[in-house]
Amino acid sequence: MKVVILGSGNVGTHLGRAFIAGGNDVLQVYSRRMESATKLAGELGCAFTTRTDSLNTAADVYVIAVTDDAIADLAARFPLKEKLLVHTSGTTPMDVLQTGSSRIGVFYPLQTFSKEVPVSFRNIPVCLEAAAGSDMQQLEILARSLTGKVYRIDSTDRQKLHVAAVFACNFVNHMYAVAADILEEQGLPFDLLRPLIEETARKVMKGEPDDMQTGPARRKNQKVLDKHSELLAENPEYRSLYVTISKSILKKYHA
Amino acid sequence: MKVVILGSGNVGTHLGRAFIAGGNDVLQVYSRRMESATKLAGELGCAFTTRTDSLNTAADVYVIAVTDDAIADLAARFPLKEKLLVHTSGTTPMDVLQTGSSRIGVFYPLQTFSKEVPVSFRNIPVCLEAAAGSDMQQLEILARSLTGKVYRIDSTDRQKLHVAAVFACNFVNHMYAVAADILEEQGLPFDLLRPLIEETARKVMKGEPDDMQTGPARRKNQKVLDKHSELLAENPEYRSLYVTISKSILKKYHA
Repeated sequence: MKVVILGSGNVGTHLGRAFIAGGNDVLQVYSRRMESATKLAGELGCAFTTRTDSLNTAADVYVIAVTDDAIADLAARFPLKEKLLVHTSGTTPMDVLQTGSSRIGVFYPLQTFSKEVPVSFRNIPVCLEAAAGSDMQQLEILARSLTGKVYRIDSTDRQKLHVAAVFACNFVNHMYAVAADILEEQGLPFDLLRPLIEETARKVMKGEPDDMQTGPARRKNQKVLDKHSELLAENPEYRSLYVTISKSILKKYHA
Repeated sequence: MKVVILGSGNVGTHLGRAFIAGGNDVLQVYSRRMESATKLAGELGCAFTTRTDSLNTAADVYVIAVTDDAIADLAARFPLKEKLLVHTSGTTPMDVLQTGSSRIGVFYPLQTFSKEVPVSFRNIPVCLEAAAGSDMQQLEILARSLTGKVYRIDSTDRQKLHVAAVFACNFVNHMYAVAADILEEQGLPFDLLRPLIEETARKVMKGEPDDMQTGPARRKNQKVLDKHSELLAENPEYRSLYVTISKSILKKYHA
């Protein structure tokens, strides 16, 4: 399919690469900032523009990949009212695109993108929504060129899914970061924890997280919980996190 | 080496299997409860006892693998005052073993053990401590029969390491569990999140967690944070977790 990407951040970059890898044509990249427009266009080997009134009109799908706050604004300036316009956000409802086109949808890849870390799309769920059935079929063709995991998910479900993803990804990474800080204060290498982190993720690839919970709060071992809270005395921020999350585990398994 | 295992829980079970896989002799399993003693002894193909005064006296190392609260008690009843006695706990200081033997140490495998989930020890860090240099050498031989990752870590460092491990493993799994609950309420499959979970762990196998942090709190996107908090209105417990952890991320990257 022929695609134009609006936005040149993490999501736009990774999607652009994946569209091309999936055999699609990326006709053009749009970004307000010349520097990022040319950079991504250079990488993808396509044209670029910094003006919405210069958008290539030949694409099948126009993919907005900008921050949530900027989606509505960009949609309002989108000039091709009969073209399929989608955004890639977990949180933003589909209908903010209504000012942009009569044909709207959502193309939400459920993954964490860091610009420098290459990602294979083969295993990434892509969640689709479209106002019209024929547009859904278009989006499904595009999604299946990237991945075997294509889901139809409406705006309400997608918002909840995004909240869940914040827990499973962003908050998880913060736990890693806190652990790294605690080790660093002690002069211990983060490498000590990497096998544990890998195994903790591996265990829920087949199993359910509830069945895999271990640790002092799961065992309701108050002595260890108190000891750990004491060990974090010099860091009230992390101590408070420790206590709050432990209470949540106690509540889930021992209420 | 010749080993006796005192305790038949998750850690005792996994260590017993790993000792044998590493070419060691497990001479005997001790457990207060006949049923678990015979079960683990049957699996390991060794003798068992439920009485500390019937412990096999021919082992090189006696490994206590019971809950933290029970270690001191069991050590006090350990009758072989000249034998190397170690525990496997992250939190308990080495010196609680002093009532048991004049030769004491710690053999702490840094991993999460669920009884039904097989674990390869090859990649697991084992953290060692010993009161005497000659006993440290013995423990190093035993540890190296299981893994290439052997660390000398004293009781103070080990306690901090254990706190860090609670964040990196137990709290991480709780984040998975909360995410699974949110999806389940919405009738969405947990499978949607598994590729994201895998990738989130994979990214810190080489990188530092701080560099990999993504999400609304990292981007200081208050609108999305408010929206998510609103979406969790029906679950005050998870809403409060969401707000607390988001604040911690904001503080770390935007203070």
